[in-house]
Amino acid sequence: MFNFSPSNEQEELLARARKIMEEDVYPAEQHIIPGQGLPKEYLKPLQQKVKDQNLWAAHLPEEAGGLGLGAVFLGLLNEILGTSPIGPRVFGTAAPDTGNMEILLNAATAEQKKSYLDPLINDDIRSCFALTEKEVSGADPTGIETTAVKDGDDYIINGEKWFISNAGLSTFTIVMAVTNPEAPRHEQASMFIVDMDNPGLERVRDIGVMGDYSEGGHWELKFNNCRVHKRSMLGNPGEGFKLAQKRLGPGRITHAMRWLGVMNRSFDLMVNYALKRKTRGTPLSEFQSIQNFVADSAAEIQSARLLTLHAAWKMDQGEDARKEISLIKFHGAKIINDVINRAIQVHGALGYSKDTPLESFYRESRAAHIYDGPDEVHRMVVAKRIFKEYKKKAEAVQV
Amino acid sequence: MFNFSPSNEQEELLARARKIMEEDVYPAEQHIIPGQGLPKEYLKPLQQKVKDQNLWAAHLPEEAGGLGLGAVFLGLLNEILGTSPIGPRVFGTAAPDTGNMEILLNAATAEQKKSYLDPLINDDIRSCFALTEKEVSGADPTGIETTAVKDGDDYIINGEKWFISNAGLSTFTIVMAVTNPEAPRHEQASMFIVDMDNPGLERVRDIGVMGDYSEGGHWELKFNNCRVHKRSMLGNPGEGFKLAQKRLGPGRITHAMRWLGVMNRSFDLMVNYALKRKTRGTPLSEFQSIQNFVADSAAEIQSARLLTLHAAWKMDQGEDARKEISLIKFHGAKIINDVINRAIQVHGALGYSKDTPLESFYRESRAAHIYDGPDEVHRMVVAKRIFKEYKKKAEAVQV
Amino acid sequence: MFNFSPSNEQEELLARARKIMEEDVYPAEQHIIPGQGLPKEYLKPLQQKVKDQNLWAAHLPEEAGGLGLGAVFLGLLNEILGTSPIGPRVFGTAAPDTGNMEILLNAATAEQKKSYLDPLINDDIRSCFALTEKEVSGADPTGIETTAVKDGDDYIINGEKWFISNAGLSTFTIVMAVTNPEAPRHEQASMFIVDMDNPGLERVRDIGVMGDYSEGGHWELKFNNCRVHKRSMLGNPGEGFKLAQKRLGPGRITHAMRWLGVMNRSFDLMVNYALKRKTRGTPLSEFQSIQNFVADSAAEIQSARLLTLHAAWKMDQGEDARKEISLIKFHGAKIINDVINRAIQVHGALGYSKDTPLESFYRESRAAHIYDGPDEVHRMVVAKRIFKEYKKKAEAVQV
Amino acid sequence: MFNFSPSNEQEELLARARKIMEEDVYPAEQHIIPGQGLPKEYLKPLQQKVKDQNLWAAHLPEEAGGLGLGAVFLGLLNEILGTSPIGPRVFGTAAPDTGNMEILLNAATAEQKKSYLDPLINDDIRSCFALTEKEVSGADPTGIETTAVKDGDDYIINGEKWFISNAGLSTFTIVMAVTNPEAPRHEQASMFIVDMDNPGLERVRDIGVMGDYSEGGHWELKFNNCRVHKRSMLGNPGEGFKLAQKRLGPGRITHAMRWLGVMNRSFDLMVNYALKRKTRGTPLSEFQSIQNFVADSAAEIQSARLLTLHAAWKMDQGEDARKEISLIKFHGAKIINDVINRAIQVHGALGYSKDTPLESFYRESRAAHIYDGPDEVHRMVVAKRIFKEYKKKAEAVQV
Repeated sequence: MFNFSPSNEQEELLARARKIMEEDVYPAEQHIIPGQGLPKEYLKPLQQKVKDQNLWAAHLPEEAGGLGLGAVFLGLLNEILGTSPIGPRVFGTAAPDTGNMEILLNAATAEQKKSYLDPLINDDIRSCFALTEKEVSGADPTGIETTAVKDGDDYIINGEKWFISNAGLSTFTIVMAVTNPEAPRHEQASMFIVDMDNPGLERVRDIGVMGDYSEGGHWELKFNNCRVHKRSMLGNPGEGFKLAQKRLGPGRITHAMRWLGVMNRSFDLMVNYALKRKTRGTPLSEFQSIQNFVADSAAEIQSARLLTLHAAWKMDQGEDARKEISLIKFHGAKIINDVINRAIQVHGALGYSKDTPLESFYRESRAAHIYDGPDEVHRMVVAKRIFKEYKKKAEAVQV
Repeated sequence: MFNFSPSNEQEELLARARKIMEEDVYPAEQHIIPGQGLPKEYLKPLQQKVKDQNLWAAHLPEEAGGLGLGAVFLGLLNEILGTSPIGPRVFGTAAPDTGNMEILLNAATAEQKKSYLDPLINDDIRSCFALTEKEVSGADPTGIETTAVKDGDDYIINGEKWFISNAGLSTFTIVMAVTNPEAPRHEQASMFIVDMDNPGLERVRDIGVMGDYSEGGHWELKFNNCRVHKRSMLGNPGEGFKLAQKRLGPGRITHAMRWLGVMNRSFDLMVNYALKRKTRGTPLSEFQSIQNFVADSAAEIQSARLLTLHAAWKMDQGEDARKEISLIKFHGAKIINDVINRAIQVHGALGYSKDTPLESFYRESRAAHIYDGPDEVHRMVVAKRIFKEYKKKAEAVQV
Repeated sequence: MFNFSPSNEQEELLARARKIMEEDVYPAEQHIIPGQGLPKEYLKPLQQKVKDQNLWAAHLPEEAGGLGLGAVFLGLLNEILGTSPIGPRVFGTAAPDTGNMEILLNAATAEQKKSYLDPLINDDIRSCFALTEKEVSGADPTGIETTAVKDGDDYIINGEKWFISNAGLSTFTIVMAVTNPEAPRHEQASMFIVDMDNPGLERVRDIGVMGDYSEGGHWELKFNNCRVHKRSMLGNPGEGFKLAQKRLGPGRITHAMRWLGVMNRSFDLMVNYALKRKTRGTPLSEFQSIQNFVADSAAEIQSARLLTLHAAWKMDQGEDARKEISLIKFHGAKIINDVINRAIQVHGALGYSKDTPLESFYRESRAAHIYDGPDEVHRMVVAKRIFKEYKKKAEAVQV
Repeated sequence: MFNFSPSNEQEELLARARKIMEEDVYPAEQHIIPGQGLPKEYLKPLQQKVKDQNLWAAHLPEEAGGLGLGAVFLGLLNEILGTSPIGPRVFGTAAPDTGNMEILLNAATAEQKKSYLDPLINDDIRSCFALTEKEVSGADPTGIETTAVKDGDDYIINGEKWFISNAGLSTFTIVMAVTNPEAPRHEQASMFIVDMDNPGLERVRDIGVMGDYSEGGHWELKFNNCRVHKRSMLGNPGEGFKLAQKRLGPGRITHAMRWLGVMNRSFDLMVNYALKRKTRGTPLSEFQSIQNFVADSAAEIQSARLLTLHAAWKMDQGEDARKEISLIKFHGAKIINDVINRAIQVHGALGYSKDTPLESFYRESRAAHIYDGPDEVHRMVVAKRIFKEYKKKAEAVQV
């Protein structure tokens, strides 16, 4: 029913990743510039080391230069990378680029792949994904108002996008726009590759946010009669929603996997500080309130871990794991925030300061309740799927 | 790392157990008399059916007539049996007899086995375990005050025991008494088999409790110069604590496994009622508050399940699973109570009535926070083990 | 803005009530028979003492023999009476009789008062209130299906009622039935007084419930062509809903007031036991987990208290307090359950036994989330009222 | 027992304060520079307006230029000022200056008052309070390691202070240092006024923190043979702890009062956004999950409010309110964080952005669990006081 055990070969890869994290990545964290990430002079050598050790862009299929080892393995890897804000970037698996890679792998022409996918995989260029609009949540890609109107061999795109992560550093964006408002709801939109220096594409402003992981900001973008050749379309007209779904599902579980890393690191910090720090001569580890924090966190982290790996395992079996992914999305979002919160509390004023990573974790993780669909939506999704399953069962019995 | 999948043969056994539950056990529940269980005329044929299908006393090793299929399998089986208050009794795995079987298997002489173990396994007689005293919690079998003083070939037992489950129906009890107060703390006590009709053993009163699963009550017992032959001792003098530990650990996880059954049944009742019941024309299943109940319960039940199976899997590997068992003990106790509570809330007044099993589940499950060690103790245990592990790691690094 | 201080005279009355509780009521609790309350031979002398000291039926207006001191005073009094399951009965303020008294005071004719109200106030007879039906929650008295059809000078009542508390001991019931299905939704039903020995009124069964406070059970009633004279109607035709509302609102706050008593008593038991009980030589009061229980309970009880008194104070000002009452209904229901739960946990197995009142409190209080409208409905009510207020404010600004 | 109602005159003052907030302070918030507050050109005119309307430095006694209207009034005023990060500064009641004012009022000589207190009250200069050390929490001013050694007419101060808020903008600091290590624990330390430009006082670094309310940072300070004249001492030798206590107690409740403002503003934002924002055509206000957020927040805010006013009222009666203040400290800290959290969730990505004040509230309020003593300590304090009360009661009964 469940089998989450990595093979020996996989164990070896994970050990190698852990070693790089401990020897290279954590020490490099001191050079992070909040909101800008790790400067290139530190980043590039680390990325090269990862490439040399065949751990680069592990999420990709083998033929695209990745490891192709499936979702459970990615879960185990991402919980290692996720322990550091710069882990994903160092290992070539940073959002939102990874999601774009998946779309390009699925739908790009050979030419598009050569121009956009290859340099993206190699981290020579960066990208963003222009889906969300002010009135359209990222969880529901229907109902968008940006349009792309055919004009000879071109499309002319008009509309405003919001909260577009990484737009500040991107060479291109993938944009979703309605090409046929008359089509059925899920077939109205198409995807286009748009170069960020297209004169019809305006970077309006970098919306400030609570977290400071993102190096490329979260932008408002405006498409003003933005003209692109029809060759810029990804896939066929009307396939935008279909492609987006392919991107969103795995993206959600990737988040959940990285959260495990944040939980684990926060837990380590909490436990080690509780052992070291004394109040009136007694180590914090001997206070029951602190012990309760540790015990509850251990239970919750382990449960997040098993739920995530279970969802990944279902994906590896080729089964529909949407319910499992929604479930870990809202359940894990609570756990990551609670664990960090307790770790901060154990550290006291130090935890509230920028002297440990906890403060940044705390701010960044608040978004976990929101991005890729707010908790409230995922709870609804899970419940509705369950109700449907039970209805089906009841009907089966009646027949 | 984790592999909880049953073999095909095991799957087949589980399917058989599920079938008996659905076809025989649930329908028999209407005959339960609260506080007395299922009357013999209904119980005995069901037990025979289970025996006929080779599912009887599955927890025992093969040579003792059980299935000997390990802890993960027992987890999967117990979550089936646990869906009904009478499941364990019907399948020959009811507490406290199972725990006593384990002690007898471990430590009884051939003669003791013949007189006590064999009829116990066959459910011809029942038993109880007299450990807890008013001032000594069941979680900590040191410090007990009942004494057994050598007198020729006999021991004379004096002391009071408290909350002795099933004493009302027992033919014998296993009692823990101090035989050597001078010995080190964990070697002071020994275990004895005492027939319940021993004139020195007084059943003082059945302490009423909130739950009504127990058929044999929870008794205060008094040993007044209770004389037993030294052949009644189990194992060697001073081994009482060691034997008790063997009993308590697995007992705790057996509880956690059965809780899964209660959670699942409560969840089923909740979902099905929410689909059926309408308020002002709208099914409850369409209200977001109800959907939240369902989604949160699904996440929590799945996490309890995975944590429990993981602990069982560690036991099957021969590893020390005490941390994992303590963890599921307090974490699962919260989940079972929360899930039942939500299921009752969805049912409204009906959930508060005795017309569904939820009301009895609610009362019975409150004890999960207390028996086999209160949550507060298990949290402490988990935290202390974690602190120890981290200390060891830190020291290893320093060397 | 807030003034919850009792006058000196009121203080004196409260002190007198406290004295009776301590000297007479608590000691009498040992004679309670679960599900049947305090036997008459113990109850009657206590009631007489209360009458002698002018504390009887304090909720009634002065002209009806009560104290007429307003809602804040009743809050302060009920938190005293509520500390014991038998408190309300001893002081002549037991549900559901009090609610019926209020209806009769409001709507009964002189003749009806003489026959029903006077003996009811004096506790010579008991009564019940037949509103709830299986498909109609007690929170929403529209949509009931029981009908009363005019037939000459009589009405003929048909229908089934459910969960009718105290029906087992009642001399009469007040029943709500539709007299005009064509009228607007809130004017369809009327109320009638029906003698319980009316041959058309069948007591189908006492539905068992989790709690055991009620002496008169919770019944299914069936009206089979139950014939009553039109003089049995309360108020005018179609006024049933209006009268019910008058009853439900104050009833809800009376519950909340009594909960304070239960909270206080549970808190006292918890604190005193934690001081007394030792584990391995250390009193429980020195464990941080226990201290956390005490501190959180103190904060929550005080908040429930202040919220309840504030709602009462608004009622005394003649202001609409429906939002405040709904708010304390769901907020207090959580607090009472949490406080009892912690008190039980501190007591361990003893708390789970029937040797303290906590076990009964626990079962009884689960209903607080359900009766007089489930939490989910009250949350909705509060939110909707707030949204309405904010809308109004926003519109006022725009004008 | 409780009377929190303001007089008519007080109501008029509160209305005036509300008007300034709405007309002047909220519109000025757009000019706030995170971490630096409101620039002087905007701040000074607002402060003048407050002075003109006799609302300046309301916390001070009348003779010192304040309003002297007691703690309940300050509660009602601070919940107005607290709605904006710049409110306290605009109204002359900003921490840590207010705490220093209280010490100076209590203990300063006429000369000290003239040099430090008068310009401080007038906001001509700013100040900081150097108590906390890395190994000494702000909650427990015993055990500090900084020393002040008599040297002729001078004292020579050595030691390191940590997390000294506002040091970046201060003209002077009040520092706590041990003058007599032989004295009883609470009489070892004394307080000194030290000019920030004293050559022996080094501003080591501004420790970055999560929140950005503070304009003057949170600093590490180092005293290197810092020489001050003995006239710089506040009060008498050994009175440091006593003076600190006077400062800390009221400081804690001032925090709790301002939290009410943050809660109220977050609540307003949440409710108004839920009314306005639609998802798939339905306003958020019609979703039950959102309604639950609103209802729970309403209950909790009201409870925080009543608990805070109650503690203030006790202070006004001259009674010991330490238990009540500790209680509101940990209870309110949870509520403020929960309410902001829900308000952010309702706003989705917008709530996570810097486009509303919620993001800043969220970061700032995390500190509420920590400053002036972590929750864990206040829970312990409350519990211990309660245990002591009950012990006393029990002993009184026995006598």
